[in-house]
Amino acid sequence: MAIKAGVVGGTGYTGAELLRLLVAHPEVELVSVTSRSEEGSSVAKMFPNLRGHLDLPFSAPDEEALHSCDVVFFATPNGVAMKMAPALLDAGVRIIDLAADFRLRDAGEWERWYGVAHACPDLLERAVYGLPEVNREKLRAARLVASPGCYPTAVQLGFLPLLEERVVEPGSLIADVKSGVSGAGRKAAVATLLAECSESMKAYAVSGHRHLPEIRQGLNAASQAQVGLVFVPHLTPMIRGIHATLYATVKGEPPDLQELFEHRYRDEPFVDVLPPGSHPETRSVKGANVCRIAVHRPQGGEIVVVLAVIDNLVKGAAGQAIQNMNLMFGLKESVGLEAIALLP
Amino acid sequence: MAIKAGVVGGTGYTGAELLRLLVAHPEVELVSVTSRSEEGSSVAKMFPNLRGHLDLPFSAPDEEALHSCDVVFFATPNGVAMKMAPALLDAGVRIIDLAADFRLRDAGEWERWYGVAHACPDLLERAVYGLPEVNREKLRAARLVASPGCYPTAVQLGFLPLLEERVVEPGSLIADVKSGVSGAGRKAAVATLLAECSESMKAYAVSGHRHLPEIRQGLNAASQAQVGLVFVPHLTPMIRGIHATLYATVKGEPPDLQELFEHRYRDEPFVDVLPPGSHPETRSVKGANVCRIAVHRPQGGEIVVVLAVIDNLVKGAAGQAIQNMNLMFGLKESVGLEAIALLP
Amino acid sequence: MAIKAGVVGGTGYTGAELLRLLVAHPEVELVSVTSRSEEGSSVAKMFPNLRGHLDLPFSAPDEEALHSCDVVFFATPNGVAMKMAPALLDAGVRIIDLAADFRLRDAGEWERWYGVAHACPDLLERAVYGLPEVNREKLRAARLVASPGCYPTAVQLGFLPLLEERVVEPGSLIADVKSGVSGAGRKAAVATLLAECSESMKAYAVSGHRHLPEIRQGLNAASQAQVGLVFVPHLTPMIRGIHATLYATVKGEPPDLQELFEHRYRDEPFVDVLPPGSHPETRSVKGANVCRIAVHRPQGGEIVVVLAVIDNLVKGAAGQAIQNMNLMFGLKESVGLEAIALLP
Amino acid sequence: MAIKAGVVGGTGYTGAELLRLLVAHPEVELVSVTSRSEEGSSVAKMFPNLRGHLDLPFSAPDEEALHSCDVVFFATPNGVAMKMAPALLDAGVRIIDLAADFRLRDAGEWERWYGVAHACPDLLERAVYGLPEVNREKLRAARLVASPGCYPTAVQLGFLPLLEERVVEPGSLIADVKSGVSGAGRKAAVATLLAECSESMKAYAVSGHRHLPEIRQGLNAASQAQVGLVFVPHLTPMIRGIHATLYATVKGEPPDLQELFEHRYRDEPFVDVLPPGSHPETRSVKGANVCRIAVHRPQGGEIVVVLAVIDNLVKGAAGQAIQNMNLMFGLKESVGLEAIALLP
Repeated sequence: MAIKAGVVGGTGYTGAELLRLLVAHPEVELVSVTSRSEEGSSVAKMFPNLRGHLDLPFSAPDEEALHSCDVVFFATPNGVAMKMAPALLDAGVRIIDLAADFRLRDAGEWERWYGVAHACPDLLERAVYGLPEVNREKLRAARLVASPGCYPTAVQLGFLPLLEERVVEPGSLIADVKSGVSGAGRKAAVATLLAECSESMKAYAVSGHRHLPEIRQGLNAASQAQVGLVFVPHLTPMIRGIHATLYATVKGEPPDLQELFEHRYRDEPFVDVLPPGSHPETRSVKGANVCRIAVHRPQGGEIVVVLAVIDNLVKGAAGQAIQNMNLMFGLKESVGLEAIALLP
Repeated sequence: MAIKAGVVGGTGYTGAELLRLLVAHPEVELVSVTSRSEEGSSVAKMFPNLRGHLDLPFSAPDEEALHSCDVVFFATPNGVAMKMAPALLDAGVRIIDLAADFRLRDAGEWERWYGVAHACPDLLERAVYGLPEVNREKLRAARLVASPGCYPTAVQLGFLPLLEERVVEPGSLIADVKSGVSGAGRKAAVATLLAECSESMKAYAVSGHRHLPEIRQGLNAASQAQVGLVFVPHLTPMIRGIHATLYATVKGEPPDLQELFEHRYRDEPFVDVLPPGSHPETRSVKGANVCRIAVHRPQGGEIVVVLAVIDNLVKGAAGQAIQNMNLMFGLKESVGLEAIALLP
Repeated sequence: MAIKAGVVGGTGYTGAELLRLLVAHPEVELVSVTSRSEEGSSVAKMFPNLRGHLDLPFSAPDEEALHSCDVVFFATPNGVAMKMAPALLDAGVRIIDLAADFRLRDAGEWERWYGVAHACPDLLERAVYGLPEVNREKLRAARLVASPGCYPTAVQLGFLPLLEERVVEPGSLIADVKSGVSGAGRKAAVATLLAECSESMKAYAVSGHRHLPEIRQGLNAASQAQVGLVFVPHLTPMIRGIHATLYATVKGEPPDLQELFEHRYRDEPFVDVLPPGSHPETRSVKGANVCRIAVHRPQGGEIVVVLAVIDNLVKGAAGQAIQNMNLMFGLKESVGLEAIALLP
Repeated sequence: MAIKAGVVGGTGYTGAELLRLLVAHPEVELVSVTSRSEEGSSVAKMFPNLRGHLDLPFSAPDEEALHSCDVVFFATPNGVAMKMAPALLDAGVRIIDLAADFRLRDAGEWERWYGVAHACPDLLERAVYGLPEVNREKLRAARLVASPGCYPTAVQLGFLPLLEERVVEPGSLIADVKSGVSGAGRKAAVATLLAECSESMKAYAVSGHRHLPEIRQGLNAASQAQVGLVFVPHLTPMIRGIHATLYATVKGEPPDLQELFEHRYRDEPFVDVLPPGSHPETRSVKGANVCRIAVHRPQGGEIVVVLAVIDNLVKGAAGQAIQNMNLMFGLKESVGLEAIALLP
């Protein structure tokens, strides 16, 4: 019997991608897509790729209706899921939040970075951080999953093998990360107009991006130490894709790094370690739920360079959320996620 | 039992897209991908989206090996398929040519536009032009299919309802068509470098493009008259997509054009007639085997404007070829072609 | 002595381009750039290309301050200039409006297309339409200039030689025009986000675009007849550039069209007729005040195809406005407008 | 009297940009543009932006003709200038090489990275490295100038203030640099086709790029120490622009970094230090001969982050070459280089 799924906040890019994947998922019945502002209008009118595939209107975010779902995805701005989660959980509905509400374990930290008090800090303890490569077993039993941010997914997958095995200094990590513009969301704004950000490249939020504490939390756990991390995100003139270029300093003489990465991810369905000397391209993951990684040690020096690419909307958001759902419901982890990247 | 498929010339964009679709096709076993220049090297190395999905090297275009296939696709430059087709057909292999070799029924016309004599003019009679919306029944029995060009697919699907029902003057048709750069193929060339054709728009081949006789042949058949057609292709700064803007002059007072189009395509799985007043976007078909069409009559005047969009590599090439294969082998027409377009 | 110039509404793309050109103009002193919303903030902060070149804050649109200008440019939304123009003209200030307020001679037509009554219909008579290739002499004496729209500039320059010499049927003109996204302006909007309109092509406003009556008015004058025109604008995934593809039907046996175009524009400093067989590219005019044109007659048929490209922000807006200013103030027409297009 | 200039190898992007700038330079007369492959054809046919501005054909690279020049620019592949330089210098012609032939002072190092022996190692001593911000006085007297590479310009300008004042550890520098595709040159190649590198991001040459020894040489000189540098270039989906993101570790408690940068560059006409907290965009320098820089110290930690942007074809190549020429001929340094960046 199909899993009944609802999507709250289906009007952004994360929502759109979630709908694309859920509609094609063989074990899911999509029963509700909510949007307060678009109530009553056709989902496929907003996202014309869905014409002929999804025949639902947006509905109001009515808790009653959502109670009949087996799982509800939140593809909402930060701060929405934390208000609706307690009642849904009480009603037995499982929740996968693609926003930031349940990603940080420390409510104080959340408040510092998001500027409002957390609505249900007691739930933070129960939430499982949805990075299957770290928390697979916990995810199988989870009722509330905090699906990771796009930058944190790429940066953590790239650094994890190095930190878990203590082969680099945890105190001086650098993550120089380039993101396509869809990462900024589907909202009316001058800064992300084609005429503003096409044919241009820029860093932003160098003084501190909201994904920084999320990344640090994950890397701290992996290294069992307080990491030092500089994280510089960049806006790149393309729609989709994240390219993380990661730098770390080796401690003493490290083991074979290629082997280290291959071993760490040998059973992972969605992490692909490239052959030595490779340079992954974001287009190789466009539309696909995969992270491709290469590890380098330029001129045999003490700096390790890791290159990790994902599609920010798939492995960095909607695809990973569905990977989490598959785990939560005991399905094969890759079901509905096997599409090949679109190239060219 | 799976259909054994071979692909000759798998190093271009049409070939890459064909591989992406064949690998995911549930009824196909891909047994051979040939390339003389790349023999022995991994297909997935050239097309990194295929890593983890296809583990084949390019092989030499060896006829013997191809004889064991049920179907062979030619994704080669013009002039290759016509040399290999007779022997393969004799061996009982079905052929789908994505190049131009078998598209024109008149060998003289072929020679005029392609500059060489046709190698097997006798086969032109047996070849079926692979536009399922016109030739569905013939395709079910075909052994040799000429899969249409990208421009001809969009232009024919847009004009057909008007010409078949004689509601426009056949003598003054205009097709102003915009194509993404992948249409120019994956070959080393200055003209299609990003730094040359990004951030720019231009028409080309106004004096006569090779797709002109192919389009004319199809429109002549539809209208049972000699059409007059001006066809102006344009190079558009994007990877995929064709947008055909078609102009025709109505004869007398025409019927309801919206209804005409909806009726013509009501049973077509891959033609989507949009509601009145719509403007289809090429992104709504990116990666999908569908043609979306809108019909307008600006200011109620005598000019009909049809807007038709396809993905040049899918409904304009590889997807259509597979649609043809499905018909030839008695499969459900849409199997392996149901992916939703990637948006954004 | 320098011409004192003011710019009202300098926060859009037309305004930005006007500032770039005025700052570099050797005969102009820019004294005021107004924006109600940005009052007090630095112009160069909004447009970082101007850092080091312009050290002015945005000021409030104060009529008194503008009265000291020799010329005021309006780069405002439609409907602003018509409210401020009468007082400025009374104060002896010359006006160049880059918006639509004074482009249509018929106030009723203006109201039909722009949805509000015209604020000073009596001025429409005095306004000179700023297409120097048509109205050069009138512009020398003008106090109030309506600088043409971007689409109308390209379409008129392309059709004029044919209509003035009566070599085509005026009743069945087609203008299929492709515009870069900067043409949609610098305003927060979902539709023109990079993630929405990059990698996609679409027509819009097929039922009727506001530039239609402006184009028709100009073509009617050129042909001394009521033209029939279908105008289909398209949104193209690039920042700048307009490519007009124009279709007309010849009457009888036409004269040498190449010669017709070359003769018509032989003395024009900013219209470049390309050699026979050419296909102008929009990148050849990026940042430059020039229209490049080619004329074709495919297969020697009865349809003439004219290809005309401009930079929508230069010859289609700010550059043309300065060309007008040069004429109004008796300067050499090309001063400040000689920059070569940026390629690649 | 005008400086007579010749350009050898005017068919690439560096050459095209050089022509655009030289044609508009008020003190230069362009007398010769050579290309062996294009001899006799019009330069403006290859670069249509030059139509109406330059009426020269490509000529054969004839040394005699070049001997009458005051200065010859080499915009050739590496290895050409070193063969022609001795004779030209003997004839009293000054040379500005935009390729790599004279950038490295050590002929052995040149051979290691470029794979061939240097043709005139004795000239390396006489060549002046054309970074005016370092070598201004030497450039005034130079007869042979090695104009810097694009990456080296951005990286050196970003690191110089930190290294000259010994405020960072020279042993652990990281340069993560993003370049537009024009940096790869105007040559027929699959890898830089729009359909290959648009909508994608990738690092390349992580194991070692030819600009590495050039950058190291400059940084060594600035710091009077052997620097340790990891340099990772990235191919970015845009035509022009370089964005260097530079990381260094402070030694002890550093001085005010903002002030350090402002002081270092206070008299530089073409280096613009942005206010604290800024993020320079490559579009702010598109077509302009300027480097814009911001300096950050995220979370007050020990890592300094410098962001430096240039147009790779202007301050990173042709513009800087002309800046060198201005110095060599005693002109005002900024003449011919004052154009404002094109935005949007």
